Amino acid sequence: MDANFGIGRSMTGPSYLLILVFALISSAATAKAPQVAPVAINVMPMPATLTPGAGRLMVPQTFSVAIAGYNEPRLERAARRFLRDLGRETGYFLSDRLGDAGRATLVIHADHGSEPVQDLGEDESYVLDVNSAGAKLTAPNPLGVMRGLQTFLQLVEVTPDGFAAPAVHIEDSPRFPWRGLSIDVSRHFVTMAVLKRNVDAMAAVKMNVLHLHLSDDQGFRLESREFPMLQELGSDGMYYLQSEMRELIAYAGDRGIRVVPEFDMPGHSTAWFVGYPDLASSPGPYQIERRWGIFDPAMDPTRESTYKMLDKFIGEMATLFPDRYFHIGGDEVNGKQWDANPKIREFMQAHNLKSDQELQQYFTDRVEKIVSRHHKFMVGWDEILTPGMPKDIVIQSWRGQDSLAEAARQGYRGILSSGYYLDAMAPAAQHYLVDPLAGADATLTPAQQKLILGGEACMWEEFASDETIESRIWPRAAAIAERLWSPQQVQDVNSMYRRMAAVSAQLEELGLTHRSSTAVLLGRAAGTDDIAALDVLAQAVQPASITIRETEAEKAGGIQTSDIPLNRMVDAIAPESAAARKFSSAVDQFVASKFQDAAAKSYIREQLMTWRDNDSALQPLLQNSFLLKEVAPVSQNLAALGAAGLQALDSIDAHKPTAAEWRQQQIAAIQQAAKPTADLVLVIAPAVQKLVEATSGAAVAP
Amino acid sequence: MDANFGIGRSMTGPSYLLILVFALISSAATAKAPQVAPVAINVMPMPATLTPGAGRLMVPQTFSVAIAGYNEPRLERAARRFLRDLGRETGYFLSDRLGDAGRATLVIHADHGSEPVQDLGEDESYVLDVNSAGAKLTAPNPLGVMRGLQTFLQLVEVTPDGFAAPAVHIEDSPRFPWRGLSIDVSRHFVTMAVLKRNVDAMAAVKMNVLHLHLSDDQGFRLESREFPMLQELGSDGMYYLQSEMRELIAYAGDRGIRVVPEFDMPGHSTAWFVGYPDLASSPGPYQIERRWGIFDPAMDPTRESTYKMLDKFIGEMATLFPDRYFHIGGDEVNGKQWDANPKIREFMQAHNLKSDQELQQYFTDRVEKIVSRHHKFMVGWDEILTPGMPKDIVIQSWRGQDSLAEAARQGYRGILSSGYYLDAMAPAAQHYLVDPLAGADATLTPAQQKLILGGEACMWEEFASDETIESRIWPRAAAIAERLWSPQQVQDVNSMYRRMAAVSAQLEELGLTHRSSTAVLLGRAAGTDDIAALDVLAQAVQPASITIRETEAEKAGGIQTSDIPLNRMVDAIAPESAAARKFSSAVDQFVASKFQDAAAKSYIREQLMTWRDNDSALQPLLQNSFLLKEVAPVSQNLAALGAAGLQALDSIDAHKPTAAEWRQQQIAAIQQAAKPTADLVLVIAPAVQKLVEATSGAAVAP
Repeated sequence: MDANFGIGRSMTGPSYLLILVFALISSAATAKAPQVAPVAINVMPMPATLTPGAGRLMVPQTFSVAIAGYNEPRLERAARRFLRDLGRETGYFLSDRLGDAGRATLVIHADHGSEPVQDLGEDESYVLDVNSAGAKLTAPNPLGVMRGLQTFLQLVEVTPDGFAAPAVHIEDSPRFPWRGLSIDVSRHFVTMAVLKRNVDAMAAVKMNVLHLHLSDDQGFRLESREFPMLQELGSDGMYYLQSEMRELIAYAGDRGIRVVPEFDMPGHSTAWFVGYPDLASSPGPYQIERRWGIFDPAMDPTRESTYKMLDKFIGEMATLFPDRYFHIGGDEVNGKQWDANPKIREFMQAHNLKSDQELQQYFTDRVEKIVSRHHKFMVGWDEILTPGMPKDIVIQSWRGQDSLAEAARQGYRGILSSGYYLDAMAPAAQHYLVDPLAGADATLTPAQQKLILGGEACMWEEFASDETIESRIWPRAAAIAERLWSPQQVQDVNSMYRRMAAVSAQLEELGLTHRSSTAVLLGRAAGTDDIAALDVLAQAVQPASITIRETEAEKAGGIQTSDIPLNRMVDAIAPESAAARKFSSAVDQFVASKFQDAAAKSYIREQLMTWRDNDSALQPLLQNSFLLKEVAPVSQNLAALGAAGLQALDSIDAHKPTAAEWRQQQIAAIQQAAKPTADLVLVIAPAVQKLVEATSGAAVAP
Repeated sequence: MDANFGIGRSMTGPSYLLILVFALISSAATAKAPQVAPVAINVMPMPATLTPGAGRLMVPQTFSVAIAGYNEPRLERAARRFLRDLGRETGYFLSDRLGDAGRATLVIHADHGSEPVQDLGEDESYVLDVNSAGAKLTAPNPLGVMRGLQTFLQLVEVTPDGFAAPAVHIEDSPRFPWRGLSIDVSRHFVTMAVLKRNVDAMAAVKMNVLHLHLSDDQGFRLESREFPMLQELGSDGMYYLQSEMRELIAYAGDRGIRVVPEFDMPGHSTAWFVGYPDLASSPGPYQIERRWGIFDPAMDPTRESTYKMLDKFIGEMATLFPDRYFHIGGDEVNGKQWDANPKIREFMQAHNLKSDQELQQYFTDRVEKIVSRHHKFMVGWDEILTPGMPKDIVIQSWRGQDSLAEAARQGYRGILSSGYYLDAMAPAAQHYLVDPLAGADATLTPAQQKLILGGEACMWEEFASDETIESRIWPRAAAIAERLWSPQQVQDVNSMYRRMAAVSAQLEELGLTHRSSTAVLLGRAAGTDDIAALDVLAQAVQPASITIRETEAEKAGGIQTSDIPLNRMVDAIAPESAAARKFSSAVDQFVASKFQDAAAKSYIREQLMTWRDNDSALQPLLQNSFLLKEVAPVSQNLAALGAAGLQALDSIDAHKPTAAEWRQQQIAAIQQAAKPTADLVLVIAPAVQKLVEATSGAAVAP
């Protein structure tokens, strides 16, 4: 049942070092019994180059770290944090005192300090040497040291003799300088504790930008002292104090992560207008928007008072956020308020602005000057790219590579988010194979390609909240982190999934709740902790795509709002089922072996029987909870899938090919069962169908 | 497989209200299918009186709370916290704004304020009325309101129609005024985040004293500004800042929990002497003690400088801790340093002190005067009770009820901890049935009984650390909380376990990690997240008692120290296996039914097969980890138990009684398998033995 660790077919680069890595991983994997985790190199993102050495470094409780060369408080804190993290990964009580360079197990050497405020493109490279006598980590600056320490943490594995790190020589640096995670804290609020856990996880996979979507129609989430009614009337009391934000910025900065704030304007701004209706293009009054979608309210681009307020506000925020980049959103303005306002139409005529788009261009241009006056580079979504913009702005693309390529040809820098929307509930592999330099971007000149700074995973929060966001982001964001850090030719999906599982476990050791939350939330929905049968179902399903969830809600006549609880089964379960993936590859393997793989067969049969028999145990529990009743048909469908799969297996065992009619009936039934119900998809259905289809062939006959 | 909710046989009080409650629970339980949690009253601790009403109160997202009557910031914070907690228990996005008394679902009424500093014996009573139209909570003061709010939170259950609270009339107040949890943060340090989560859990089960064992031979854990070398040299850098402690005290205070500090003296004090060797009875130098046990170092009771330092120190701490009670430990002084010091012997002669005990009495007497001068009542372990002590001191007894009874006869107040040591790894039921007013205490006059203030669950930390302490304390401490709050006749163990399971789930919803930590720590030890087979073993075992763990370590020649990692399987698993208890009652039920209970039989067979077949799947994983290798024989024993049980079942099915010789062999093998290995006990063994024994009877014959 183990994954197949072949070298990715799409691997084209002539990097023999990388091939060495994969070869090592493959042999380690095949040498072990399937139940046991292969003692492999589970680093994620995969380093630029990694050369396996001979032997390994034991990591006992006496493990120590020393800083040789350049030193500074941030570097010391990083070394101490490394020891604490290593303690969490081993259970060792490690002193956080730093040792002597002459005797320490791991010696850190940085050449010089980092920038006072972490800069885009600042060197993050490092060299890590591990051999049986010790380890040495060298980097130009503390930032590179931090990245190397994370690599070391991931190298440590439990072995039959103790914790150990494999001997390796790693020379590593990121492919892209902007590797972000964007969190929408407006549509549902996210507490500081959860944000910090996300920062911990980002650091583990070497992401370096936390982009906070701080305002939208549904909430304004940060204290402004200049304009306190922004948060007082625009947030339902759910906002960050400036002191809290400063603490988060310091926390992230300590981990080599920049914090980029976004205040969306001129659209997506209803929450501003609750406290400051004069800023809008219609008189108001306004209320916090509870629904999802694109709404009419937009800032009035024609009044000087708008720019006066934005100048003061951006000035305040430019001081609070030390980062050089400042995100003004700029997306999805429908222009309705502008069209409906005679004064605005007058203004447009007077200024020869021929469309809403040109009016927004005028607005963006004014805002850019304000942002720039406060010594920041402006970042915005695709829409902000209009003629005449200075070349130092950055385009974040929700539209895709074409849009970025177009910008790069004009000399603009860009970051990709299209394809990286975590809220879409797509499998990690799908995000993983989206490359910022693919598509139209592949046709750019090398100089133009340099303008593609990287990308950002986006976690929009219509259907996520403080208690579910960790499972929505992790571990899938690690696949995007690897895409943005590792060489382009690192594309082996099986290897990615294997290493992602290791990262996922590591993150739980560091305190994230992306896995443990499922049992808590399922137990809450069920009203009992005896959820074994519910868990069987949970592992066979995945959330339907967000589009389906939205469509289904509309069909049911319900308007989705921020008030609707996210306490259903679809909210509790992981976006991607590792168990279902395992079952699918077992079926692939079994069919490919022409039904000879006995281990795969026995595992498949056991799973199918469990599924077939689960419904009768589960139904009473589902019927007892108003939150789970909707899942009853899914449980019945799972039983039906189990039964169909077992019939197929029986025919294979009996060497009796099935009739075409029977297969057609079964496949129709399977496809019916596979349709989203209660926003859940029985993700094991295609594998069961494959099994049924396989009963036609000559292979079944004796 | 559901528990048997009979009325406790030991129930003697004529409380018809209580009988009503139990009757209600029983009927709810029997009316439901076994898979489904009964919609029952899961309140823990059980209220003093509870009268079920007709119907229920629906708890929708529009649920609101209002404060009528007396108000103060602490009360408002409690009401808002209640809404947040209710949000966590339902997934509802509840506004934390308080509503109008005329329209709110739950109306709170307090008559007057609480004491500025929460006092021992302060009124904690409340009356809670829930009916289909709304709920009313009245209490003399905010403290009672907090207790009532916790009751309401526990009443809310998921139902087929929505979240709902049953209609009830509750008049509640605690049996004992001192219901504590003592946490030893000296032997292993516990971080503030974990302490706060423990406070959250204490509040949920209405405990009201957090006793912090802040110093011992192995560490001094609090910043002293008067004597900074206490923490600087005595803690390995692991101590609380005073600012952190103040925050914890405020956090606990907000939840109706007093914080009582303990600084153990004159023994258990090596950590003091690392920075201040002059305080000791031998010249030193001293190092932090790494071993467990009773050690020689003790404060020098003969020098005035000792009392000068203690006066200053206690003065500093008396200001930091607002509570009226101050714990000076006083336990386990072996007197060796005193005996070895000629000056001390001289002093004893000069002062007519005839024994070490009398010398300690002299010391305690002096310290008591200091404590008292700083306006605190002294608390100490049994040893401090010596003739002439003022009557306002409090004895905490690790010795038992006899010791407390003796003290009470002399007019001293006492709290019981004997029988409540959570680190002993005893089942909750064992702690539950220890009553502070049983044994010798039962013979006291009513006036003397009033001197028994309550008790404290104790979590000593030789074999627990920050990452395992939550699972060691919870949910078992809830059983002790009930013993100390509820009427003495509330003693039904099955009811307790059922409600404890609900509390356990509630605590995870509130953020505790006592359950989720097991998977994380097992995964860490295994080096993989694929731990299904390991989990099967984990649920069939329990940690051996702490005595066995200590003895086994000694036998192995190892000295147990604070440096030894707590990362073994015994550390990861829960102290008590709910799955094993379920299996045992199924066997009881099956045997009692004369083998007629088909549901029980099928469940038992399934379990036994799982156990029999688990070892082959598990061994490769165990062999791959140096931390799990020791568990290999336990896994084999589990397989053997499964096989023995299945043979017994087969003989029952075949209506063929087994031969006495076979049974003897089996029982010998089972008892061998049940012996602790790797500090684990196969707790399902007695039930398997019962099954084997049952195959002798006439019942087996056709």
